[in-house]
Amino acid sequence: MLSNHLQNGMETAKLLWSRVPNSEVEMEANSVAADDNGGYKKHDSSNVESLDYEVIENSAYRQEQAKRGKLYMWYSVAVKWFFALLIGIGTGLAAVFINISVENFAGWKYSLTFSIIQKSYFAGFLVYMLINLALVLSSVYIITFFAPEAAGSGIPEIKGYLNGIDTHGILLFRTLIGKIFGSIGSVGGGLALGKEGPLVHTGACIASLLGQGGSTKYHLSSRWLQVFTSERDRRDLVTCGCAAGVAAAFRAPVGGVLFALEEVTSWWRSQLMWRVFFTSAIVAVVVRTAMGWCKSGNCGHFGSGGFIIWDISGGQEDYSFQELLPMAVIGVIGGLLGALFNQLTLYITHWRRNHLHKRGNRVKVIEVCIVSIITSVISFGLPLFKKCTPCPEADANSGIDCPRPPGMYGNYVNFYCSNNNEYNDLATIFFNTQDDAIRNLFSAKTIHEFSAQSLLTFLVMFYSLAVITFGTAVPAGQFVPGIMIGSTYGRLVGMFVVSFYQKLNIEEGTYALLGAASFLGGSMRMTVSLCVIMVEITNNLKLLPLIMLVLLISKAVGDAFNEGLYEEQARLRGIPLLESKPKYQMRTMTAKEACGNQKVVYFPRVVKVADVLSLLRGNNHNGFPVIDHTRSGETLVIGLIMRSHLLVLLQSKVDFQHSPLPCDSRGGPVPIRHNLTEFVKPVSSKGLSVNDIHLTPDDLEMYIDLAPFLNPSPYIVPEDMSLTKVYNLFRQLGLRHILVVPRASRVIGMITRKDLLIEDNEDADSVELQSTSVRDQQPGDRRRLRRKGDTQQPLLDGLIV
Amino acid sequence: MLSNHLQNGMETAKLLWSRVPNSEVEMEANSVAADDNGGYKKHDSSNVESLDYEVIENSAYRQEQAKRGKLYMWYSVAVKWFFALLIGIGTGLAAVFINISVENFAGWKYSLTFSIIQKSYFAGFLVYMLINLALVLSSVYIITFFAPEAAGSGIPEIKGYLNGIDTHGILLFRTLIGKIFGSIGSVGGGLALGKEGPLVHTGACIASLLGQGGSTKYHLSSRWLQVFTSERDRRDLVTCGCAAGVAAAFRAPVGGVLFALEEVTSWWRSQLMWRVFFTSAIVAVVVRTAMGWCKSGNCGHFGSGGFIIWDISGGQEDYSFQELLPMAVIGVIGGLLGALFNQLTLYITHWRRNHLHKRGNRVKVIEVCIVSIITSVISFGLPLFKKCTPCPEADANSGIDCPRPPGMYGNYVNFYCSNNNEYNDLATIFFNTQDDAIRNLFSAKTIHEFSAQSLLTFLVMFYSLAVITFGTAVPAGQFVPGIMIGSTYGRLVGMFVVSFYQKLNIEEGTYALLGAASFLGGSMRMTVSLCVIMVEITNNLKLLPLIMLVLLISKAVGDAFNEGLYEEQARLRGIPLLESKPKYQMRTMTAKEACGNQKVVYFPRVVKVADVLSLLRGNNHNGFPVIDHTRSGETLVIGLIMRSHLLVLLQSKVDFQHSPLPCDSRGGPVPIRHNLTEFVKPVSSKGLSVNDIHLTPDDLEMYIDLAPFLNPSPYIVPEDMSLTKVYNLFRQLGLRHILVVPRASRVIGMITRKDLLIEDNEDADSVELQSTSVRDQQPGDRRRLRRKGDTQQPLLDGLIV
Repeated sequence: MLSNHLQNGMETAKLLWSRVPNSEVEMEANSVAADDNGGYKKHDSSNVESLDYEVIENSAYRQEQAKRGKLYMWYSVAVKWFFALLIGIGTGLAAVFINISVENFAGWKYSLTFSIIQKSYFAGFLVYMLINLALVLSSVYIITFFAPEAAGSGIPEIKGYLNGIDTHGILLFRTLIGKIFGSIGSVGGGLALGKEGPLVHTGACIASLLGQGGSTKYHLSSRWLQVFTSERDRRDLVTCGCAAGVAAAFRAPVGGVLFALEEVTSWWRSQLMWRVFFTSAIVAVVVRTAMGWCKSGNCGHFGSGGFIIWDISGGQEDYSFQELLPMAVIGVIGGLLGALFNQLTLYITHWRRNHLHKRGNRVKVIEVCIVSIITSVISFGLPLFKKCTPCPEADANSGIDCPRPPGMYGNYVNFYCSNNNEYNDLATIFFNTQDDAIRNLFSAKTIHEFSAQSLLTFLVMFYSLAVITFGTAVPAGQFVPGIMIGSTYGRLVGMFVVSFYQKLNIEEGTYALLGAASFLGGSMRMTVSLCVIMVEITNNLKLLPLIMLVLLISKAVGDAFNEGLYEEQARLRGIPLLESKPKYQMRTMTAKEACGNQKVVYFPRVVKVADVLSLLRGNNHNGFPVIDHTRSGETLVIGLIMRSHLLVLLQSKVDFQHSPLPCDSRGGPVPIRHNLTEFVKPVSSKGLSVNDIHLTPDDLEMYIDLAPFLNPSPYIVPEDMSLTKVYNLFRQLGLRHILVVPRASRVIGMITRKDLLIEDNEDADSVELQSTSVRDQQPGDRRRLRRKGDTQQPLLDGLIV
Repeated sequence: MLSNHLQNGMETAKLLWSRVPNSEVEMEANSVAADDNGGYKKHDSSNVESLDYEVIENSAYRQEQAKRGKLYMWYSVAVKWFFALLIGIGTGLAAVFINISVENFAGWKYSLTFSIIQKSYFAGFLVYMLINLALVLSSVYIITFFAPEAAGSGIPEIKGYLNGIDTHGILLFRTLIGKIFGSIGSVGGGLALGKEGPLVHTGACIASLLGQGGSTKYHLSSRWLQVFTSERDRRDLVTCGCAAGVAAAFRAPVGGVLFALEEVTSWWRSQLMWRVFFTSAIVAVVVRTAMGWCKSGNCGHFGSGGFIIWDISGGQEDYSFQELLPMAVIGVIGGLLGALFNQLTLYITHWRRNHLHKRGNRVKVIEVCIVSIITSVISFGLPLFKKCTPCPEADANSGIDCPRPPGMYGNYVNFYCSNNNEYNDLATIFFNTQDDAIRNLFSAKTIHEFSAQSLLTFLVMFYSLAVITFGTAVPAGQFVPGIMIGSTYGRLVGMFVVSFYQKLNIEEGTYALLGAASFLGGSMRMTVSLCVIMVEITNNLKLLPLIMLVLLISKAVGDAFNEGLYEEQARLRGIPLLESKPKYQMRTMTAKEACGNQKVVYFPRVVKVADVLSLLRGNNHNGFPVIDHTRSGETLVIGLIMRSHLLVLLQSKVDFQHSPLPCDSRGGPVPIRHNLTEFVKPVSSKGLSVNDIHLTPDDLEMYIDLAPFLNPSPYIVPEDMSLTKVYNLFRQLGLRHILVVPRASRVIGMITRKDLLIEDNEDADSVELQSTSVRDQQPGDRRRLRRKGDTQQPLLDGLIV
């Protein structure tokens, strides 16, 4: 028979758990750790940390919440929306700041170089190279010595975080600062990388910092903090932040929502979508307002060329059937080059981590400087070898200046050409900011602007630059370089199509756009979100079906070779992302086989402190089943306790007791003396480790009752369930642990859809009453029932470690 | 101890289940039935039928599949994609057919009426009314006497189907035909309804018919059929069909994908999204090709005005802060009017079902005729009372003719105005196809085309017409009427804004667009998908953030009053959709409380046929736990068997046996003599009922071994799990049944993320080997283990009914 006190304790815990706002989704965090060399170390929480969505709320808080009831729910919802607003504004402003800075640095750099070129090429080159070097150096310095976690795009890490795996340091205030200023340096310095990935990371950092009430240095009021005691709420904020980042990076609000929900999180909830949507809309408004303000010339070089929108609405309106073949070819090329890009970057990053970056920070700085110099030499030097082209005469009435006036944005860069009616096509794409280069590649009505030779040269050189730049110690996005590469070969194909189907009204710019979509599809393997982003950044809906088809082909081709860029990188960094589809061989495996020969470490309900400590030291598991003995000596699994919660209990010591009896055996509810927030690990710290616990010998002799702190109903599966089913359960619910239990001996009831249909409007009170009355009447019955069951429970000895 | 034969049987069943392609998602179908009066009848499968995702594959098929292995998987994937292609083409062609027909009927109607008007108004009106009446009559006749399931929009039913509740007859060939021709009649006949909802239903019908290999009358080859033996695959096809329908209705491929995944299905899988995406792209290509072909004049009246795209790309490019307030006002109006619309249609539909439509088909026909006549009178008569307006002079250079030439599409309808420089603003919206009316309302550069009085009149009259038309026995979509209503009040607000902020460059058309978005948001409560659809149909990305904000407001306002249109209608029809969020009171309830006092009906593993029959007659449950006795007499739940599968077994009789011993006790694997497809209920039939079973007294004395046919590992939850958790499990995995079991007495293992990370590339063989070796070695161990467990299993008597 279950003793009364267990009943009480269980009721307390159940209430606790059922009251947690939205406690229904638990997140899986992992006992797999990543080492820098890319392998998985099992059961080591040194680097990748575990995160719990399993929150405990103390009884004072719970009572307060119960009093407030629905009013409190409204308050909590309102605060969530308010934070979504803040995230939108913050990310929007960060994006504006980065863009203004980059555009100003780049604009100043190019105009200075151009003016010096008039006198001496060499001096011009030197100035150009030195400015680039200085900018890049500032970036790599910030990253290496101040915020090492801000290197790279950050998307794999954020993806990992939202799937439950916390890489240390990715959401710190330091990282945010490093990301913003590092991006400015590396993008302004002309490296073959973009600022879009980092902006997603920036948005996530802003969201996370807001969610925990600022950095550790300055806290907001604690009233606000209380709303975000659950890890899940914080993760939701980070999802909003991701969407805001994409929305800000591309001015693509819908693309941002879809990116966050397709690519980043592993599950989908309509309530969250709704808030993410709002955040994106706010970002769009903020960015638009800032750009309106800048239009009046307040932002220096940041003008119409500033924020990404490669408007191709003036381009090709229609397509004919003959074009589908070359478009399919673009898709195939995109898939091949994208997969190759993923593979090459994987090798290089692997090599870099294992050989180069182990030698210390100085090597990292030198490496980036060398890359910067190479980039400068190529982008300045190669156009010098290219002959100038006379301006096309037919384009005189298309409204495009040739050559473009100095210091302006546009096609037909004059560069070193002496003749006023000439331009250098290689300089048009090379010696330019990436945004402008893409604008030139996408541009319509500029047939024959580029020679095939120039495009090929650029493709090869830029592809190589992008590959070697990837993985250096600077913030680096792959969107813009991907678009550059893709639009180059897209335009190449377009040139052939133009000369082949001379009758049709074909624009090379359209093919450049399709090429960009195909390369991104082949590399990142996104679908709907990428499609929407492409449409939003080019502001042309008419090409949507073509973009969709090209994406389909390139993704299919790429998938034949390897995984997507982010997945590959996440794997390299040891972030164990679960794929959307279970592996083929799981079909023949059962849940039990997945557990392997792993020994289950149990805790009894009331446990000696010394035992807890030795058990925690003895293994690295993150969750432990808790069992209790009924009076007749039988065992019963009463829940799951988290390592992190145990550590908090051990550190605070307030729950230690002298008696080995459950704390509620003395009657009355269990008082919980903890502040709610103690159990939530701050993102900015590494969390408690068992080595942080210092206990006196007296402490070690005391006992602790775990019942109020455990999760009383973790998800369970029977031992012989197919592993595919388990996998889907795990992934769809974002779980952390699943307990594998023996087949049940009986069924208490069946839940079908109708059991879950509870009318709330008019019947709310009666249902509430009914459930309360069930609650009030039931204990006796339930106990009787359980007593009956309990007497039949087997005695399982030797299972408690 | 478990006997050997049970082991064998279980292994067989497990293999069966684990081999089912993608068997991991089970769908919930329901034992709740809808009666026509809107209440729920519990446990009655008469009208709404249960659907199983739980498929059984026979051993021959399984062996064949095992032989083919991965090759077979590729084949199956290829067939799925091929079907997606077919669905895209089919839906695209259906949409083209409907549009061409509607445009031709309407065009012919208006040109005839216009030419008669020149002689006699009364004769013109008579002809107009009679043509409308004839078209509507054809529609209602088809619906009433041929395909009653094709009435309404069909979206609530499809939504129900994809959530596991099959309303009888919604996916028949008859319904498809009724939907297509009914839509042509009702839309061509000028009723206040749209063809978009019906197109979604049409797409779903096409997909479902393809999935089951044509109608019952003509079958495709059975080889193809074999791929879609699982209900889940068929449902996936229907999801593709829905997306194709939206994509075809609005020429909005991305909107279609999002609609299918946000609004229609309750879960989200990236593989499916990918295929849905492809289908939508195909639809877009098909529609575009057909329109290109029609441009050369092959399609009669179907010209540029045909397929919906209300291009407003020439409109307002920018917005200023002062405009945000009136836009918010539009959002509020949209929320209020939308909620009111939902409420009114709910009352009227309820009344119609309970009083009017019970009186038979004749009443339905008469009702629709009366509605048609009222619509004709209003749309012809009201403009007569309106004075003609002189054409604006300033617009002479905007390229818009005033009055428009007869027989053309455009603004400024002359109607009865004698003067060649006059037009009738009410006729411009009333006496026009809805597509053209919306185009006029959205049109830019036509400030002061409409008077406030006309717009108000139209708003009131059209709103009333839309309310009374809703729920009549014709195919009816609510998208286009919603856009009409919304754009009318939007334009009204726009007029006030124009006169208030005279300095700003404001277009009334932009406000009309926002109004349309707000009304749809307030009524249908969709978010991202609606936003994308609005952007795609108006071909203007610049207003995206504004549309998002307006949608947010109108949805929030609407949600304060009632549920979305589709949810309300689904509830009225007794389709038990699970909301995305669990109810508040579920937080304090447990799984056991949800089961209520429901008695669990068990089957033993080997059961007498007579017992099966009496049990099936005695209740209406759809799933039954199966238990077995170990040799020591203890019980063990070995799985769940479906009512529909039992009925198939009873009908076919091939598995009857004389011995009460398990069929595998004689050694060897269990031969399954069933064709795979027998267990899949065809969508076009009502499925087997227990009354269809006719058994001889000899049969009744025989036994049947259920082990090969049951689902050996249904999802289980412990009895005291919080109901919110159960709810999420149910909804996220699309479950059908959850077994509630007692708390486990021990834990066999824990599954964490790392246990689910199986490297496949190079290690595939070794893992496969390993798992095989586990499989080979384990049985002994496992049996020993289980033996140990089994001896400790309690003896539970009296649980087997």
